[in-house]
Amino acid sequence: MTEYKIALVGFGGVNRALAQLISERNTSWKESLGFTLKIVGVTDLFLGSVINRDGLDAGALVSLPATKGALAQIPGGTVEAFNETVIKNSGADIIAEATFTNPIDGEPATTFCRWALEGGKHVVTTNKGPIAIHAATIKELSLKNNMAFEYEGSVMSGTPVIRLAKQSLAGSEIVGFEGILNGTSNYVLTRMESGLAFSEAVAEAQKLGYAEADPTADVEGYDVRLKVVILANELLGAKLSISDVSCVGISGLTANDIDDARQNNSHWKLIGSAKRNADGSVSGTVEPKLLSSEHPLAGISGATNAISFNTELLGAVTVSGPGAGRIETAFALLSDIINIHTAYKK
Amino acid sequence: MTEYKIALVGFGGVNRALAQLISERNTSWKESLGFTLKIVGVTDLFLGSVINRDGLDAGALVSLPATKGALAQIPGGTVEAFNETVIKNSGADIIAEATFTNPIDGEPATTFCRWALEGGKHVVTTNKGPIAIHAATIKELSLKNNMAFEYEGSVMSGTPVIRLAKQSLAGSEIVGFEGILNGTSNYVLTRMESGLAFSEAVAEAQKLGYAEADPTADVEGYDVRLKVVILANELLGAKLSISDVSCVGISGLTANDIDDARQNNSHWKLIGSAKRNADGSVSGTVEPKLLSSEHPLAGISGATNAISFNTELLGAVTVSGPGAGRIETAFALLSDIINIHTAYKK
Repeated sequence: MTEYKIALVGFGGVNRALAQLISERNTSWKESLGFTLKIVGVTDLFLGSVINRDGLDAGALVSLPATKGALAQIPGGTVEAFNETVIKNSGADIIAEATFTNPIDGEPATTFCRWALEGGKHVVTTNKGPIAIHAATIKELSLKNNMAFEYEGSVMSGTPVIRLAKQSLAGSEIVGFEGILNGTSNYVLTRMESGLAFSEAVAEAQKLGYAEADPTADVEGYDVRLKVVILANELLGAKLSISDVSCVGISGLTANDIDDARQNNSHWKLIGSAKRNADGSVSGTVEPKLLSSEHPLAGISGATNAISFNTELLGAVTVSGPGAGRIETAFALLSDIINIHTAYKK
Repeated sequence: MTEYKIALVGFGGVNRALAQLISERNTSWKESLGFTLKIVGVTDLFLGSVINRDGLDAGALVSLPATKGALAQIPGGTVEAFNETVIKNSGADIIAEATFTNPIDGEPATTFCRWALEGGKHVVTTNKGPIAIHAATIKELSLKNNMAFEYEGSVMSGTPVIRLAKQSLAGSEIVGFEGILNGTSNYVLTRMESGLAFSEAVAEAQKLGYAEADPTADVEGYDVRLKVVILANELLGAKLSISDVSCVGISGLTANDIDDARQNNSHWKLIGSAKRNADGSVSGTVEPKLLSSEHPLAGISGATNAISFNTELLGAVTVSGPGAGRIETAFALLSDIINIHTAYKK
């Protein structure tokens, strides 16, 4: 039986949910997964940091208040976020990076990933920033150090997308994909089909916690664009930068557009897509598309996400599931760790 | 670079499509998958058999007529089906078993699998019979002999279901599933929604090659029942026999039923499902269910198959794709071989 020592970098909703899973399920994982996890360090810009090589109490971490410097309440903790020390010197085998997404330069998460890999630690992350902007160089670093760099949760939270495509669909020859990759905008479109105006639907999404106070990144497609870059580079061997992907959001769609579509048994969806062109190049776009009801993504309603892979040998294969959520995204980190266990246990 | 020697047992549509993939793609697999395949034997009750340890010409096999004893036309071939010899003595590393499904006792495919595993060969198969009836004992044999026994194609042809659930969703705690697992019956229901009577829709499905001359196994749910047994035993740790799963088909649905559903924005679907009960037991059923339009399977139309896994950590995760087809099913065999390569290459 293997025990992995893990350090949590960023202690917002996702890593707190991972701590919750550990506190509730570690014992059963011993049998079902063949390993257990021991939290040896936590660091967070707002909450401070703590290291305990003998293992921190996961339950105590979960019930910590979200107040400035709260990690100082844990024995040995401090109000300061000693990120570098926790990453390099907590004795962790695996770093779970779940800080905020920075779509400009991927920092500081990218530096956290580099410190970890250079220090001989595996990295699991749900952060779109480092992957969309620096995946190639970080992967190179991980190969050089023979450490894993896993990021299943960067696209559809816990719904398996990268691993489905790279493992289960290996050999099927993926030539493109279309996805509903943002739950907020899909929720807004679904509600507009029920008669709400765009602004009413956005307000409702905000009330339900789907949309942030500033919904721009969701409704203008910027969030989807990061995911298109991640998937195009990962699955189609592209080398796209964020600015290579054209991006139009849903704020220009009117109630009339939605109504016309419904009368034709069609649906407007915000689609992030990429495809390999005849000359071998890969192009990616984000834009509202009018889908007929037979399209595999036409029936995806509410905050659900989905992606349809276009393959040479199977035609379209589509997976749908949650695209957000604390526990769902924490599961993505767990699934990355399971993958590390499978790949490195021998 | 690895070369696997493979023997094809049963040379109907599926293994012929595998031979076609080999003839067209073997060279590119060298780079993309890290291995190539060499066909060293073929045997088929109708076509005869042939062995060539130096490798048979895949292209010549593909263009062989489907006439009795045709394998005798290949140098070294014979009109007789020397199954046991091809399985045990062709020098194959992997046996691709794709003979007909026998839902009564799984024979002769089960014996073919046993011969292969006892002889130190990996087995890949798309055959529902051996899996639904004898999976536990054949798996035991494969473990004892340290050989792989893979059968992704036994449920939804090439659409990854077993591997998605066991690999990508490991740790998500699957507690049940609902599936549209038979393309013919789903096609019939879809066409009935367009106004056709049951018998007209069945006739159309037969004309298109979706339904056999005797459509009983498809429309009465017997085919789905085999798949429910396979998945319940594989994913929920059940020990169900075929007779443990209650089974009602779609032949009792009337045009009125379909019409009433449409007026309520609902759809009748033939659902194969299983769930873990509170007492730990697992129950499986096959029956038409009325799904509201929000249900993840409600929008699956035509011959497409889909399965929705109910998980503790992610809620519903649904995958849809082809559930039949020569090339699609041959891809399932390829994906099994890829899995063997990944698991055994070290």
